[in-house]
Amino acid sequence: MKYSFQNDYSEGAHPKLLEALRQAGSKQNAAYGNDMHCKHAADLLRKEIGREDVDVHFLEGGTQVNLTALTAFLRPHEAAIAAETGHIAGHESGSIEATGHKVCTTPGVNGKLTPEGILRVLAEHPDEHMVKPKLAYLSNSSECGTVYSKAELAALNRCCRENGLYLYMDGARLGSALCASDLTMQDIGALTDAFYVGGTKNGALLGEALVICNDALKPDFRYILKQRGGMLAKGLVLGAQFEALFEDGLYYKLAEHANRMADLLREGLRAVDCAFFSDSPTNQIFPILSDSLIETLAQDYAFETWGRVDAEHQAIRLVTSWATPEEAVREFVQDLHRLCAK
Amino acid sequence: MKYSFQNDYSEGAHPKLLEALRQAGSKQNAAYGNDMHCKHAADLLRKEIGREDVDVHFLEGGTQVNLTALTAFLRPHEAAIAAETGHIAGHESGSIEATGHKVCTTPGVNGKLTPEGILRVLAEHPDEHMVKPKLAYLSNSSECGTVYSKAELAALNRCCRENGLYLYMDGARLGSALCASDLTMQDIGALTDAFYVGGTKNGALLGEALVICNDALKPDFRYILKQRGGMLAKGLVLGAQFEALFEDGLYYKLAEHANRMADLLREGLRAVDCAFFSDSPTNQIFPILSDSLIETLAQDYAFETWGRVDAEHQAIRLVTSWATPEEAVREFVQDLHRLCAK
Amino acid sequence: MKYSFQNDYSEGAHPKLLEALRQAGSKQNAAYGNDMHCKHAADLLRKEIGREDVDVHFLEGGTQVNLTALTAFLRPHEAAIAAETGHIAGHESGSIEATGHKVCTTPGVNGKLTPEGILRVLAEHPDEHMVKPKLAYLSNSSECGTVYSKAELAALNRCCRENGLYLYMDGARLGSALCASDLTMQDIGALTDAFYVGGTKNGALLGEALVICNDALKPDFRYILKQRGGMLAKGLVLGAQFEALFEDGLYYKLAEHANRMADLLREGLRAVDCAFFSDSPTNQIFPILSDSLIETLAQDYAFETWGRVDAEHQAIRLVTSWATPEEAVREFVQDLHRLCAK
Amino acid sequence: MKYSFQNDYSEGAHPKLLEALRQAGSKQNAAYGNDMHCKHAADLLRKEIGREDVDVHFLEGGTQVNLTALTAFLRPHEAAIAAETGHIAGHESGSIEATGHKVCTTPGVNGKLTPEGILRVLAEHPDEHMVKPKLAYLSNSSECGTVYSKAELAALNRCCRENGLYLYMDGARLGSALCASDLTMQDIGALTDAFYVGGTKNGALLGEALVICNDALKPDFRYILKQRGGMLAKGLVLGAQFEALFEDGLYYKLAEHANRMADLLREGLRAVDCAFFSDSPTNQIFPILSDSLIETLAQDYAFETWGRVDAEHQAIRLVTSWATPEEAVREFVQDLHRLCAK
Repeated sequence: MKYSFQNDYSEGAHPKLLEALRQAGSKQNAAYGNDMHCKHAADLLRKEIGREDVDVHFLEGGTQVNLTALTAFLRPHEAAIAAETGHIAGHESGSIEATGHKVCTTPGVNGKLTPEGILRVLAEHPDEHMVKPKLAYLSNSSECGTVYSKAELAALNRCCRENGLYLYMDGARLGSALCASDLTMQDIGALTDAFYVGGTKNGALLGEALVICNDALKPDFRYILKQRGGMLAKGLVLGAQFEALFEDGLYYKLAEHANRMADLLREGLRAVDCAFFSDSPTNQIFPILSDSLIETLAQDYAFETWGRVDAEHQAIRLVTSWATPEEAVREFVQDLHRLCAK
Repeated sequence: MKYSFQNDYSEGAHPKLLEALRQAGSKQNAAYGNDMHCKHAADLLRKEIGREDVDVHFLEGGTQVNLTALTAFLRPHEAAIAAETGHIAGHESGSIEATGHKVCTTPGVNGKLTPEGILRVLAEHPDEHMVKPKLAYLSNSSECGTVYSKAELAALNRCCRENGLYLYMDGARLGSALCASDLTMQDIGALTDAFYVGGTKNGALLGEALVICNDALKPDFRYILKQRGGMLAKGLVLGAQFEALFEDGLYYKLAEHANRMADLLREGLRAVDCAFFSDSPTNQIFPILSDSLIETLAQDYAFETWGRVDAEHQAIRLVTSWATPEEAVREFVQDLHRLCAK
Repeated sequence: MKYSFQNDYSEGAHPKLLEALRQAGSKQNAAYGNDMHCKHAADLLRKEIGREDVDVHFLEGGTQVNLTALTAFLRPHEAAIAAETGHIAGHESGSIEATGHKVCTTPGVNGKLTPEGILRVLAEHPDEHMVKPKLAYLSNSSECGTVYSKAELAALNRCCRENGLYLYMDGARLGSALCASDLTMQDIGALTDAFYVGGTKNGALLGEALVICNDALKPDFRYILKQRGGMLAKGLVLGAQFEALFEDGLYYKLAEHANRMADLLREGLRAVDCAFFSDSPTNQIFPILSDSLIETLAQDYAFETWGRVDAEHQAIRLVTSWATPEEAVREFVQDLHRLCAK
Repeated sequence: MKYSFQNDYSEGAHPKLLEALRQAGSKQNAAYGNDMHCKHAADLLRKEIGREDVDVHFLEGGTQVNLTALTAFLRPHEAAIAAETGHIAGHESGSIEATGHKVCTTPGVNGKLTPEGILRVLAEHPDEHMVKPKLAYLSNSSECGTVYSKAELAALNRCCRENGLYLYMDGARLGSALCASDLTMQDIGALTDAFYVGGTKNGALLGEALVICNDALKPDFRYILKQRGGMLAKGLVLGAQFEALFEDGLYYKLAEHANRMADLLREGLRAVDCAFFSDSPTNQIFPILSDSLIETLAQDYAFETWGRVDAEHQAIRLVTSWATPEEAVREFVQDLHRLCAK
């Protein structure tokens, strides 16, 4: 095996985060996220977002954030709206349903939720014999690698406001999305009711920062965080890593690297006239390759097959990360070109 | 502030674990606990337990383990039995109830669950108008610092077998308990249906190892682990730490240190005729001190007050850990003796 | 078997209710509780309560009302407070926990919740590591047959207001309670946030009327009613019966009869110097009798044994109802007197 | 308003059931479904099914049966498979999700679940990052009025057996389905793991009979019945009605009447060349009419509009029942013909 492009969580943490963990851990600190590192990291995020009034909570992983947030935000009969490809709809083992809430799906456009999709779900749920859709869920970047522009997010915000819905952004891969679009952390703080900033897939051992912008969603969140198992005893493990990520822009540097590695892959693939399953500008790309080519590549590289396109072609998923070495990418491209030249 | 005896999770991880994390994280590995470190750590635990046939899963923290395990083990109408002081009964924010299950409490003896206590709960639940108690929960060491002897655990095992109950041990502080009793990891593997080996409170950044001994409780656990948010993307974060803890007995060495520090505190307290709220041989001790002495000590040391004993005395809780320096303990004892000599 | 005093739900419905059902059912009506009978019955209850602004919903049975109401009223981390003898605490098969909420118990006084009991629970739940008590649950009459005076309910109301709690009354046997105390339906409407008027145990085939007084608890209740299975397709089955119960005071007449039958039993028991387990003025009484007397009585009468008092005595429960014939009561008293005279 | 074809639960109960209720209720009986009427009714159903070994439980309504059964049958990570039009998928307010389980939908054929649909869902759920489909849900008659033939049910049974799934039939309108197909109660008892026989929509005030055929699904069902609010104190209310329905075939007679009334409607509609949205042989029919005709008919008749077919036509739903008078149907057909003749 030369290299794995299977996902962006195959390695541990960036060395700066490990060093931050070592230093933070060498002193006694308050527990359960009340330590100075969590406080400082939250302040850094508030500065980044440009709002003093948001609440910030640190959790271990994306499924944990999604299920805890939706549990806290929704009454029992309220439901989430997600694109059919949305992570909570299909890839979190029914975690939202396990908290009692239905996820109503709607076709996405390039893996993205649209105002039209939201309105369609609302039209299908007119009364108390159905659940009451109350929260629109989107992932940025999406499960297809696509990103939301500022205009798209503003349109979703408007649609949600007009229909009494909360707008929630899953930011498992937010770094990569922000570095590939016109959207900023400030925009997201202004346009969503809550969102999370993913650490696990951008340099951390583990850790996601949930940001609650809407005052109505803030009360008693720590009760539910504890109740659902998301409150780490040693909260500094999360706080110290987010400090390191946001002290001097490391978060963006790591995401830019991942995107640049994906750019190299994209260029290499385009050079052999490869088509793509989705138009992704981020660190997940979905080239469509022949079965035989996939089989040969799979001898040296790990990646997921995403779906069959026709009798002889499938889309695969290649994922780069902050840790992907440029040489691995160049070697993959060379191998690809060599194979295609035959 | 000279030192905090507030809990055993104020510091980060033992240096060997940080180094293990650094090394493990520098290579690409499988995700979601399928990496070689989790596999190796599980093997080390199986060896320690003396059983090849147990399932081992790594999770982030104690509340997460308890709620995930009980969700997986119980049908909707089944309930847990715990001592009134049991952690799931009062200190996990209703996490078990949030999964739908009642926790039936019974008075403990020195904070410990007894066969008599179990039988009392069973007698109170005769039919379908009540929940059906199905699992006996105990913490070792208990919330009062006390430990279960091998004979006590065998008696609980017998009681559970005779009444169709599962026996589950919360091992958040298992290291300290094992180093202060005649019980071994093998005994626990033989006498319980499931238990967990706590890492967070014994040298790890985070992490607990759930061991499922009873075949009936094994199927599909990973589905529920994922569903409840307990499956880390970078599973190696847990696996690598447990490897380091169990490769050469570090787990016991760290617990022994914590216990020895508690011994020094106990001796120092006994030297000034201090009484104790519970007879704890482990790293949590509960001396009963006068209000004025507590007030003075609190100027230099952090600790929890546990409960009022009479108009002028309270029990406090002093906790030591793998990281507690002997000097901090000696200084506390000196300060105590000086204050009592006045 | 001469007669069963086992409970107040051994018979069907009062003939007037059956006739009301027959008449109502002979015409087409709106479904799901939107029929004219439910509307009229709700109006009759509003008049009885003296408030135009309360919401009224009809459900099938007491456990269904309690679980649906608490699901609708509480956020996931919020808990109910109940006396240890409270019905939701022990006799509804964990139905409240099954909706995710803990029931915090506190010792009652004569089976009744007190402000002191509430404050005790609040003191034990200071922070987010415990559940947040949010609703005080009481049954009137209580599970011990005792009743709340207007002053007692006012004191509970004050305690709840001062501590941000909802006050909820389980009125499975409200008719009997109202006919045995100074409390009125208007008082309850003024002093609770929600309560229910029990039909099943006072003349109906089935049916309870939930009254929501607090505006904050009203939104979207019908969604949750439907979601938890409590919304009958043929809502008129409930509405027509409550119309018959409240059109001309039948509800109180039936309860008065039950109470008067219990009075006859009480008198007959006191005549043989019988002591009572609780001081009940309602249709459930708890005489303490010798084991041998109980054994003999059990040959001709059905009743529950409630608990052992000493080596030779137990409390039993005798329940009368709207349907209990005076002759059955007189025969029981005669048999008792005859047996005691031996 | 001349007549309502809006649903089959606009009226009360058939007179024989009311009389059975009156007689049963005049004597004291055991509570909670342990009365002689429930026992006898269960025996009548066992005889009808031709199996002595099935468990029978009586519940109030369809949503209550579905949520209680699926709660009892499924582990937390297991999901139901339903056609997109399945009642649990869209019309029970998220009741299944509220018990923690996802409903996986698949396109139906004429509103019916197919083996292909099941296999498609299974293929989409390969591992622990998704829920585990475990139960196939179907309604007979379906929400589109269509019915399953014996061959179709046998094929579904085979598919479920081969894939480790339970097969569950929602029989809210089972009477109408059985009277319009080659399927018998015995077939259903042999081919499903559990099903329910609907009473509410076929002559009862309320009441459904859940039949559990698979031994693995039987244990402790009454605990969960009580816990979810489905256990009526006066169980005889359900038992007595089912006795009356199955003592001498009344259940089938009532369903045949409903079907015959639907036949008259179908004939009348076909006579004016009306097309239908689905090919229903049961008591729900879905004619496609012009907007103007619908508007005119709606002045005298109540019915639901089901969905728009083109710019000028919609499908409506006409439902007949055991109580529908033939004159009402004939008048509707005359009015229709008169309007179409203009």
